Amino acid sequence: MVSSNLKINHERLLADFEQLSKIGLTANNGICRLALSREDLEARSWFADRIEEAGFLVHDDDAGNLSGILPCDNPKAKTLLIGSHLDTVLNAGRYDGAVGVLAAFESLRTINEAGIKLPVHLEVIDFTDDEGAWQPMFGSLSLTGRLPKNYLRDANGEMSSFRAALIRAGINPEHVHRARRAAADLAGYIEVHIEQGWRLERSRVDIGVVTGIVGRSSYQYAFHGQAGHSGTSSMWERRDALQGAAIFITRAHELVREHYPEGVINCGNVEVKPGTRTIIPSEVIVTIECRHVDEAMLSEMEQALIGLAHECAQAYRLTVTSDRFGHIATAMMSDSVIGAIEKACNQLGATHTRLASYASHNAQVMSTFTESGMLFIPSVNGISHNPAEFSRWEDVVRGTNVLMHAILNMALRQ
Amino acid sequence: MVSSNLKINHERLLADFEQLSKIGLTANNGICRLALSREDLEARSWFADRIEEAGFLVHDDDAGNLSGILPCDNPKAKTLLIGSHLDTVLNAGRYDGAVGVLAAFESLRTINEAGIKLPVHLEVIDFTDDEGAWQPMFGSLSLTGRLPKNYLRDANGEMSSFRAALIRAGINPEHVHRARRAAADLAGYIEVHIEQGWRLERSRVDIGVVTGIVGRSSYQYAFHGQAGHSGTSSMWERRDALQGAAIFITRAHELVREHYPEGVINCGNVEVKPGTRTIIPSEVIVTIECRHVDEAMLSEMEQALIGLAHECAQAYRLTVTSDRFGHIATAMMSDSVIGAIEKACNQLGATHTRLASYASHNAQVMSTFTESGMLFIPSVNGISHNPAEFSRWEDVVRGTNVLMHAILNMALRQ
Repeated sequence: MVSSNLKINHERLLADFEQLSKIGLTANNGICRLALSREDLEARSWFADRIEEAGFLVHDDDAGNLSGILPCDNPKAKTLLIGSHLDTVLNAGRYDGAVGVLAAFESLRTINEAGIKLPVHLEVIDFTDDEGAWQPMFGSLSLTGRLPKNYLRDANGEMSSFRAALIRAGINPEHVHRARRAAADLAGYIEVHIEQGWRLERSRVDIGVVTGIVGRSSYQYAFHGQAGHSGTSSMWERRDALQGAAIFITRAHELVREHYPEGVINCGNVEVKPGTRTIIPSEVIVTIECRHVDEAMLSEMEQALIGLAHECAQAYRLTVTSDRFGHIATAMMSDSVIGAIEKACNQLGATHTRLASYASHNAQVMSTFTESGMLFIPSVNGISHNPAEFSRWEDVVRGTNVLMHAILNMALRQ
Repeated sequence: MVSSNLKINHERLLADFEQLSKIGLTANNGICRLALSREDLEARSWFADRIEEAGFLVHDDDAGNLSGILPCDNPKAKTLLIGSHLDTVLNAGRYDGAVGVLAAFESLRTINEAGIKLPVHLEVIDFTDDEGAWQPMFGSLSLTGRLPKNYLRDANGEMSSFRAALIRAGINPEHVHRARRAAADLAGYIEVHIEQGWRLERSRVDIGVVTGIVGRSSYQYAFHGQAGHSGTSSMWERRDALQGAAIFITRAHELVREHYPEGVINCGNVEVKPGTRTIIPSEVIVTIECRHVDEAMLSEMEQALIGLAHECAQAYRLTVTSDRFGHIATAMMSDSVIGAIEKACNQLGATHTRLASYASHNAQVMSTFTESGMLFIPSVNGISHNPAEFSRWEDVVRGTNVLMHAILNMALRQ
């Protein structure tokens, strides 16, 4: 067992964080490093330089996943992956993803400098397009061989633009499947991330040990009514698609709050047709996303929302159709990785609690492939996907130390 | 007084109606003659041919208003205008506007053929762009000298496209102001139109005599909240702009139905920002139009809606701003025109009732300039701005006969 006195170099970590935070900085102090954008490529190039500087091997697979490898003496050893992502959503903060990659990198540097010999290769990985500028989890889906064949066609944005963005990043769209690895070559996957909620902060706990990641289903509800003249149609006898959609939005949130306290929904978009002030809306499309930590409850909640939509439609003499256009199953984290993280917390005197992740992460994809786990550090006010996203630096440092010792615990267990 | 036995030629009117209904016919049996479009220009050219055929003078002013004039013997006489419009909204029906122009034209033909000498010129007019493909009431605003100077800049659609459309229609954008007439030259304005509601049909009354046209105010309400991660933000503590907007839409309709029975609103569009399913909406813009027959009540209703919006915003810890971007004042019809119409109804044995118009019409603009009035014929099921728009042919014929005798009553009163 490695002494719990071994600590990462927090000044070096901070210097890295500050440099990375300048890449994609926007006028409102936010970060924009959409996957495969110029800013994302700049961040990757910066990171490749850091990997070389540290004396690790730079590895760049056919899906653009960028790694730094600290090899062990046995070339046939398995690889323990530790990662996150450098890409961001639009108008993002500095911590989401970036902390995970830099913490993993700093852990490897510290282990390397301490001269610790491990029975596994250690590999820090920046997964391509975690956030889904084009295809959420593009990198981890490719690495695990689960990227759909027609991924280009179903991507967000134009197919030709996605293709161009891949090629610009040096990725051949036809060769992405070559990024697939063999599960037998892996010793596990571990990731540190900001919580993006306020559970840890409010309960004053240092580390969240993730037990599972919520399943997600995405729907489009289309409410159909009848167009009409906005002035001459009676206020009592309209078949106004927007009135049905509006009451549905209100009542859907009430339903989830009252009956599914562990469920989460978001109505993220509304499209009104024809969308002009002088015509009563004939069609309204509501985009809604559902999450639940329990797969069966997620399904029950989805059915309850469909029932509610029909009830709201009937009240305004409308019809409604629902189309589930995306589903990611609930993922359970590995007991052995949970154990390695909790042991590291105890070694370092960090308080910890088990919790579910309401956000998707690459660990969700990796968990179908290899023993995987995650740890969360507190987010101030739970703000995320927003320039105001913030975590205290001492929490970032503590989380990185826990990560490093969790890596050691996992590696030495082999 | 002219004998009430004088009747229009309903077969000729029907033939005109059937020919006009073929211009701009769409695949779903609707009509599309957007102002200044190829179809609109085709309808105008067809109508100019009919005017010439009838032996009237064709007149085409600098705003593209197209008229047929039946002159009286005294060249210095005033002109009684009778009109409506040949343009339509997108995906319209066959009756809105077209009935008014054809009924006026048929009335003039019948009066001419009967050899009746009147002390005024009679002029049937097709006003340019009643429906606002570019600028609502473009023609009547130009004729009354009320078209805003920067009309090109503030139009719907691109300024350059509007300019091109005007030029294509033979209208010089710089010379539109020359269409202005002198109020002293006019003897009044009268228009027949479908009701676009079901009040006449349900009360089994033949003719609606319009007392006033509702005022209209258009607003954009912008609800501002906080963007956040759709999965990790607590369902109890969000500042979700869409939840505020949705409850506002529901309660705004309730408020008007309960407290302003003569008021009408329409929420015609909703825009959600950033508009993606994984981010909690930070801003939602609701476009809303308010109408009321009473100018003071319209203003009170507008204030009540602003108050409600603030209440709904506060309930979700949002802020809201309201921007009134359009207002057309309530217009009162002239007692003398109302009298001429009611007298004609009585002469012909048509039942009639006074009512307000909830739709805007050129009579609204004309009423600020000359004594104006309107009569409505029943609309089946009140459907309008829709291919299913329908009025029984006997009602169209009865309305045309009432219009003709109302014209005679007005003209002979001079």
